[in-house]
Amino acid sequence: MSYERKHIQRMAGYVPGFQPRMPAIKLNTNENPYPPGQAVAACLAALSPEVLQRYPDPTADAFRATAARVHRLTPDHVVATNGGDELLRLALTTFLEPNRPLGVLTPGYGLYSVLAQIHQAPLCAVPLGDDWHLPDGVADRWNAALCQLAIVTNPHAPSGALTPVATLDRLAGIFRGVLLIDEAYVDFVDPDLHHDATALIGRHRNVLLLRTLSKGYSLAGLRLAYGLGDTQLIAPILGKTKDSYNVDAIAQAVGAATLADTASAAASWSAVRASRACLQRELAALGLSSEPTQANFLLVSVPPRSPWGGAEALHRRLMDRGIYVRWFDEDRLRDRLRITVGTPAENDVLIAALADNPADVQQAL
Amino acid sequence: MSYERKHIQRMAGYVPGFQPRMPAIKLNTNENPYPPGQAVAACLAALSPEVLQRYPDPTADAFRATAARVHRLTPDHVVATNGGDELLRLALTTFLEPNRPLGVLTPGYGLYSVLAQIHQAPLCAVPLGDDWHLPDGVADRWNAALCQLAIVTNPHAPSGALTPVATLDRLAGIFRGVLLIDEAYVDFVDPDLHHDATALIGRHRNVLLLRTLSKGYSLAGLRLAYGLGDTQLIAPILGKTKDSYNVDAIAQAVGAATLADTASAAASWSAVRASRACLQRELAALGLSSEPTQANFLLVSVPPRSPWGGAEALHRRLMDRGIYVRWFDEDRLRDRLRITVGTPAENDVLIAALADNPADVQQAL
Repeated sequence: MSYERKHIQRMAGYVPGFQPRMPAIKLNTNENPYPPGQAVAACLAALSPEVLQRYPDPTADAFRATAARVHRLTPDHVVATNGGDELLRLALTTFLEPNRPLGVLTPGYGLYSVLAQIHQAPLCAVPLGDDWHLPDGVADRWNAALCQLAIVTNPHAPSGALTPVATLDRLAGIFRGVLLIDEAYVDFVDPDLHHDATALIGRHRNVLLLRTLSKGYSLAGLRLAYGLGDTQLIAPILGKTKDSYNVDAIAQAVGAATLADTASAAASWSAVRASRACLQRELAALGLSSEPTQANFLLVSVPPRSPWGGAEALHRRLMDRGIYVRWFDEDRLRDRLRITVGTPAENDVLIAALADNPADVQQAL
Repeated sequence: MSYERKHIQRMAGYVPGFQPRMPAIKLNTNENPYPPGQAVAACLAALSPEVLQRYPDPTADAFRATAARVHRLTPDHVVATNGGDELLRLALTTFLEPNRPLGVLTPGYGLYSVLAQIHQAPLCAVPLGDDWHLPDGVADRWNAALCQLAIVTNPHAPSGALTPVATLDRLAGIFRGVLLIDEAYVDFVDPDLHHDATALIGRHRNVLLLRTLSKGYSLAGLRLAYGLGDTQLIAPILGKTKDSYNVDAIAQAVGAATLADTASAAASWSAVRASRACLQRELAALGLSSEPTQANFLLVSVPPRSPWGGAEALHRRLMDRGIYVRWFDEDRLRDRLRITVGTPAENDVLIAALADNPADVQQAL
């Protein structure tokens, strides 16, 4: 006899990207390849053990005030969470009845469907177009299925495709549920595009943006993200459904210091964009083409008759050399690899390994 | 129109104890009055910002190995959580169908019923006996109501009463669901009692113990707790229902260092026990009697015709002087205050305030 609920027994958990022991060339979970900025070091150095003795601020007011200032909103438009995963889960808890489907796009972040399974909600999965962009009529599909919540990853993972704000604006106007826009990778978007979805918050009561410090701010280990949205979306999460003390005292302090000084993170985004373009060209020269991307990763097509023997084989072959990239055993993705943009040195090791020059790889490691 | 689910709209959130700006005499949320041990300071000093750049270990293996060693279990009997609140929530998610009631004892920790409301599960609330101990037949009551999960706080909050392991052993044998024993305050139990509920894990497949570093280890701001139980209770939480990266990298490191060296925390427990006895005597001398307690707080009865004008009035009067204690607007508790045991100096300020000697209070603050 098992004490597990039946639907939990039947489901499989989400499998996070493998976390190898360093040293390794880790291009599999989309972290920023540069360390966090000076503000983080200063904040950690100033920590005294006494800050841990008392409970943290349950609503992370200082952090929320800083985030609000950065986005020109008021703090009641902001909720801080223990990483983006927590905000995703809380959106289901707060807005989605289990007998209603969660709207998603496929392929997409595998956690969305795992969260729906835990919540016992079905999925209304709409396939992305051939170019990985939103297909026409997606809001109508979700409305017809009576979705109360839908998630759009923008830039999309694992393709890196960016949906323009104007398209999201139309989508939010048509969709009758809460539209959660998962902007985990938005910091890496080319600034020349002037992409800013926060403008949607004043225009739509149903738009909830997810921002995280894990990717752009090099703080994946800290667990800090935040939601931005209409006060009526934020209030029930902040006051009712989140755990009482969901963000620890160090994350609140480091997070506020980080957002108060975005210059050093912005320098890393610029470096990642330059490396992204360079890596994309070099991979293409080896016969490995990839989609246009506005994120810090490339979705690379591996020709089935390539010298490396297909995507899964190449994934294993790189792993044997201490280079970790991500392969998904999933429709439309089995012939591709998702490769995080690393530092120029890391990218060089990858290119050398692909060019099959073991001496170069050994030397670089 | 609201996007909130109807039952979330109707419910009120949990209200954590007030977190005043320091300096204040803070005896309202049961923190350890002593700072964390040397291991924490050393661990924080050794932190480099790079530790935050990568995702943390999703299953906190190093921390779990340390916790397992301390409790003479194997790591598959341990799951680490973002504070005890997360383990409580995950127990509902994993083991309780929303159409089945959550078994609780009243009065008790207010969060239990809030979690049940979020989960849309009813409560099967059994009143504690006059002496705050488990009434006879509680397992039968929960079985008759088809509870799949029940929570016993031990030592009990807000009374501090300790239920012996032998009683829990019988309860676990009769109760047909998962018995979650919330041991948030167990570190403050008199060691002469040789109280150790971990022995129940080998004997019962349905016992889940909650341990936290918030209270005994002075790390409320860090957010780290853990569950101990049969591998079949731990596995679905660890592998399916918890958020992928629920415990941050700093908490994992500080937590492992803390549990690897329990001596300094144990010294604080001993000091708290001595202060507890002393404070209890001094309060009694002022006409404020309290229950026998094995926790780091006292449940003090305020006679309605006392010079302070009843419990609620006294609570406000102390707050005006910068002394925070907890008053619950709840049956059987309205004529009482829950007072956390502070340092001897803090306790002296409280006693002076109760003895109505403003000069003493001012000087001590």
